Order: sequence, then C-alpha cells, then structure tokens
Amino acid sequence: MKKYNFSAGPAILPAPVLEKSAQAVSNWNDSGLSLLEISHRSKPFVEVLNKAESLATELLGVPEGYKVLFLTGGASSQFFMSAMNLLNPEDLAVYIDTGAWSTKAIKEAKLFGQIEVLASSKDTNYNYIPKTYDVPQNAKYLHYTSNNTIFGTQFKEEPSSNCPLISDMSSDIFSRPVDVSRHGMIYAGAQKNMGPAGTTLVIIREDLLGKVSRTIPTMLNYQTHIAKDSSFNTPPVFPIFVSMLTMEWVKENGGVEKMATINEQKAAVVYDEIDRNPLFKGTAAKEDRSLMNATFVLENESLGEKFMEDATAAGCVGLKGHRSVGGFRASIYNAMTMEGVETLRDVMKAFEQKHA
Amino acid sequence: MKKYNFSAGPAILPAPVLEKSAQAVSNWNDSGLSLLEISHRSKPFVEVLNKAESLATELLGVPEGYKVLFLTGGASSQFFMSAMNLLNPEDLAVYIDTGAWSTKAIKEAKLFGQIEVLASSKDTNYNYIPKTYDVPQNAKYLHYTSNNTIFGTQFKEEPSSNCPLISDMSSDIFSRPVDVSRHGMIYAGAQKNMGPAGTTLVIIREDLLGKVSRTIPTMLNYQTHIAKDSSFNTPPVFPIFVSMLTMEWVKENGGVEKMATINEQKAAVVYDEIDRNPLFKGTAAKEDRSLMNATFVLENESLGEKFMEDATAAGCVGLKGHRSVGGFRASIYNAMTMEGVETLRDVMKAFEQKHA
Repeated sequence: MKKYNFSAGPAILPAPVLEKSAQAVSNWNDSGLSLLEISHRSKPFVEVLNKAESLATELLGVPEGYKVLFLTGGASSQFFMSAMNLLNPEDLAVYIDTGAWSTKAIKEAKLFGQIEVLASSKDTNYNYIPKTYDVPQNAKYLHYTSNNTIFGTQFKEEPSSNCPLISDMSSDIFSRPVDVSRHGMIYAGAQKNMGPAGTTLVIIREDLLGKVSRTIPTMLNYQTHIAKDSSFNTPPVFPIFVSMLTMEWVKENGGVEKMATINEQKAAVVYDEIDRNPLFKGTAAKEDRSLMNATFVLENESLGEKFMEDATAAGCVGLKGHRSVGGFRASIYNAMTMEGVETLRDVMKAFEQKHA
Repeated sequence: MKKYNFSAGPAILPAPVLEKSAQAVSNWNDSGLSLLEISHRSKPFVEVLNKAESLATELLGVPEGYKVLFLTGGASSQFFMSAMNLLNPEDLAVYIDTGAWSTKAIKEAKLFGQIEVLASSKDTNYNYIPKTYDVPQNAKYLHYTSNNTIFGTQFKEEPSSNCPLISDMSSDIFSRPVDVSRHGMIYAGAQKNMGPAGTTLVIIREDLLGKVSRTIPTMLNYQTHIAKDSSFNTPPVFPIFVSMLTMEWVKENGGVEKMATINEQKAAVVYDEIDRNPLFKGTAAKEDRSLMNATFVLENESLGEKFMEDATAAGCVGLKGHRSVGGFRASIYNAMTMEGVETLRDVMKAFEQKHA
C-alpha cells in the first residue's frame, strides 16, 4: 500500500531522490563502486560537494560575502557554535523564544555571551509568534527559530531588527524564499526539507568571524571549515549527496518560490479541513500557523486512537503529535504531495461521518 | 569489470552490507518507507541503535562500566572532546606521536590540559612506532593512535602504562581483538572498518567523567549522549545503520579474532611481494608494519605512472600513496578480499616481468 509519511523528522524525501540514492549505494555512476566507499577527496565527490554548495547558493540567493557549509552535529551543535564564534563574553545577543528549540539555543548561548530573551510565547505553550519587542542598539545579533516543528507556528516575516539575524531554519529551509542578506547566519539540520539526518547546512557572513578572543578548538571554528570547503576532515558523504539530490529536485521543480506556492496550497487543504470539521481544532494561532507542521487535536480526545487507526489504514503515517502539545501533527514538507494531504483530508472527512 | 577498492577511507565495505543498505534506502523491511525518512525515535530505528551498541560491545568485549556511543564530527572532534571532558587545566596527559593524526590530537588537547609528548617518530617521517618511554606517575591518560593510515605503521601491542589508555582506532577498529579494560576511551571514525562516513564510535569508561570544572556545551559533554543513548538529538541514522550491518557482517564471519587471522594472511600476501619483488620497497619499519595500510614505493620512481596504469587496468583502484609518503598505499581493511590482494600481487609480479 502507498504510504504518506507525515513524520516531523527525519521526514519524507522526494521519490526520485530516494531512487537515485539507492542506486548510488549499489553502484554510483556505473563506476563499479558504491558512493559509500569512495574518497571524499576524489574528483567525483568534490564535484558533489561543490554542486551542493552552488545549489544552496542559487536556491536561496546567497549573496557575496557568505559561505555555505555542510557540517555535522545537527542544529543542536549550532546552538553553541554560533555564540562561541560570534560573541565575546561581554557581548549582548537577543533571542526570541518560540519553543523547545529556541529554549535550547538560549541555554547554550548563555555559556558564551550576555543573552537577553526579547520576547517569549511560553505563557501560552508557544502557540503564537511574539511580534512586539525592542531590539537594544548594542545587540550583536537577533536569533529566531523560523519554524517551530513541535508547536506548529512559523514566522511569516523575518523579525524587524537593525542587527543581523541568526535563524534556525531546520524545519522550513528551502520551503520558501528568504532574504539571506538580513541574516548573519542561517543554519538547518538536514532531516526535514533538505535530506537525511547526518549533515547540517550553515550559511555564514564571513566578516562576522574572527572577532572573538577565546580559543576555539579547530573543529568548532567556522573559519576552519570555510578555509577547507567543508572538507577539513571527512565530511558525511552520503547525507551531503542526498541533500544535493534534494536541492536539485527543488530546482527542477521551480525553486523555492514555487515550493512556497505549493506549500501554501497543501497547507490550505489541511487547515481548511481542521477549521471546517467540527471534530477537530487547530492548536496554533491562525495567523502564525506553520506551512510545514499542522498541529491539531480532537475536540473529543477519547477518539484519538480510532482516528490514528483510520489514518494508518489509509496509508497516512507519522501523525502522532509531540507529547508537549498532544493530538496530531501533519508534517507537510516540500516532498509531501497534494495527493498525500488530500488523502489525510479525506480520512478526516470520513471520520466526521462516522463520529459526528 | 570487478573493482578492488584499496582506498584509505572512506573505504571498501562488504558487498552484502552495500546490498542491504541500498535496499533499505529504497524500501526498508518492506515498510513502504525508506530508512532515510523514518523517525529516529521510532521503534524500528531504536532497535537498530541498540543492536549497533550491543554488537560493538560483543565484538570488542566491552566490560561493564563502559558506554558505547555513536556520535558525529569524526575522530577530529574526539581530539578535543576527549581532553575537554577528561582534563582540568592543571592535569597532565601524555601522548605518543606517530603521525599526522597524533599531531592533531596533541594540538587540540593542549587547549584543555598539560600535554606531554612522551615519544615521537617524527625524526624519520613516522616510519616506526616508538617503544621506549617513561609514563609520569601523575598522567591522567596516555593517548596513542593504534594504526597510522598515512604512514602504514601500527601498534602491535597496547602501550605499557599504569594510567588508562586512550586510543584513536579509526583505521583498525574491529580488525583485531583489543583489551578495552586497559582503555579509558576508544574512538573511531566509521569510514574505514566500521561503515560509511558520518558517524564516530566512542567507547568510554563512565567513572572518568564528570570530574572537570569547566562548563561544557551540552552537545560536547559525553554524559549528555550517555544519558540519552546517543539520541539526545537526531543521530546520523543511515551511517549508524550501515555500521550496524558491517558489525553484523564481522560477527557472522567469525568476529574480530577471525578478522585478525584473515587480515594477517592478506597483509602477508602484499608484504611478501613487496619484499620479494626487486622493483618495490616498503616504507615502514618491518616490525611495525600495519595490517591495514601497506605503504610502498618503487625503487625507480619514474615508473610510478606506468604501475598505476597497470593496476587500474586490473581493477585495482585507490592505490595512490598519501602526499607525505609518496608512492603507493594498499588499504586492506576487513572488507578487502583475498582475491583483491592476490590481484594486486599479480599486478606487481607482472610489472616486474615487464620492467626488471
């Protein structure tokens, strides 16, 4: 049976990407060798890495003066590396707290600089995006989590700020256009819209680096990876390869502008049904609803197991909500098809017929 | 044409491992989903992670009191993480310098403690393993690189020491038995004998942790990953899966004792030919020759390109030596077959016939 994978991450990848990836593991480019067993310094893999870098640059319109890196350690490592590389102990950085991932970023940054939380939606279990705050003149950067996977909220616009922005875009990178020039840094774990788990995209404005006084271990210094084009040591070959294929797929399918249009259409199918269907209700403030993760609950919670059974029977998997919100979460990243969201909508409609 | 992959790393993996890995990328366990798109917290992947941990424990005989972790960032990240987690600034640790990787480990450790280089073979371009040194009574640990990929040398015995050993076993893990109990820590990048690039095995004695005064970012603290069984954040799902399959293959083929026997036989085929054939000579001291990486040069260097052509024509690839040694390097990890080393030997013999 055809499966529709609504998992929050690691998440659905485009079918042609999976097909090419499997082929590369067996026998890459008819070389008689697997992609897994070739040197990361061989010409064919250096070309993969260069292509991944140039695709990210092209898709997001990364301006001159920035470097695109493919690192490891997930966004969780960027929580501390960003502050470690950009803040002296006396420097101020400001953060908007929109959920679990923001909270972790704030915790780690506090080890390296003066951190002020500008605004937080913690008071209402993070069901909205705070929009009013004053950014201090001396802030080195403003950090925000562009999409909140757990709570189903998303910044519709970049925060207003005179200082450079830093954004954790792990769950909506490549899902819509972004003004990179307003950012000092963008980072994203691959395992939602970019590829499989195992690599982390970092886009960094180079002139911000080299200004802190602390000694940074070689592997934690962005300048190390910039100087060596993400190959100071062996990079995660396969995760980078699959990410390259996924970016290629985004380009072939119209780029991030087209992705944004389709993502809006797909999200409308799900949210319209949530709003129409008397059995369900959304958990996030309407104006801040995420186009990537639609969170919703049943008015009658006791029907939860029955709904999951019906969804599973229709091939819809990965719908269980995060424990801190409960209910359901439909993650509808770039690779989720309109057919998938329509199938989910039909399951919700049929469920209404049975239980209304 | 059949290829024999002598690359130093990322390196050859067993054929059945590659086959199962490709299948899992297409459709894992007939689930209708790719391994790349399932949650790292789903039961099937948690089972993979647990199996990887238990296979490593079983194959190496890891005693009670140790934890097996699968991290990211390569051995290069362990160079500083080991010292950061185990040394206070005034603590002494001692290192044996046997090549480029030891040198990097020493450089990073100096950021966190008092580091003494006990012995070094730098004077002869690292072509032997130093064997005489006195370990100071107050050393917290002795660090050594068990196999030196670039220079083709290998410790035949663990160094004698009263303090715990720490070993970078990136290029000979699972190739022979090891007395884990003498080690405070063992680490290994996956991409030689364990799997594809993208994960790093760490085996650590838990009672050594929690004794340093510095604040450690969450992701850099071994205790974080111990508490969360390598899943504090999203682990590198695919590299861990392939590593699990490779360890399974080692077990099915007789374990590390049997690997050691076969590796000795394979290495003998290559080294016997190097010693017999008047056109070639080995670069490493005979008693310290690596069973994993056989380094050799031509007596007449100008024949180098011709030899590479003949080797390539016979399907032998990845033989170019590292620039700091020159000549050739045959990496003959666990997955290299006897057929592969015999093919290389035959190329060397035929080359003698043509050019002697």
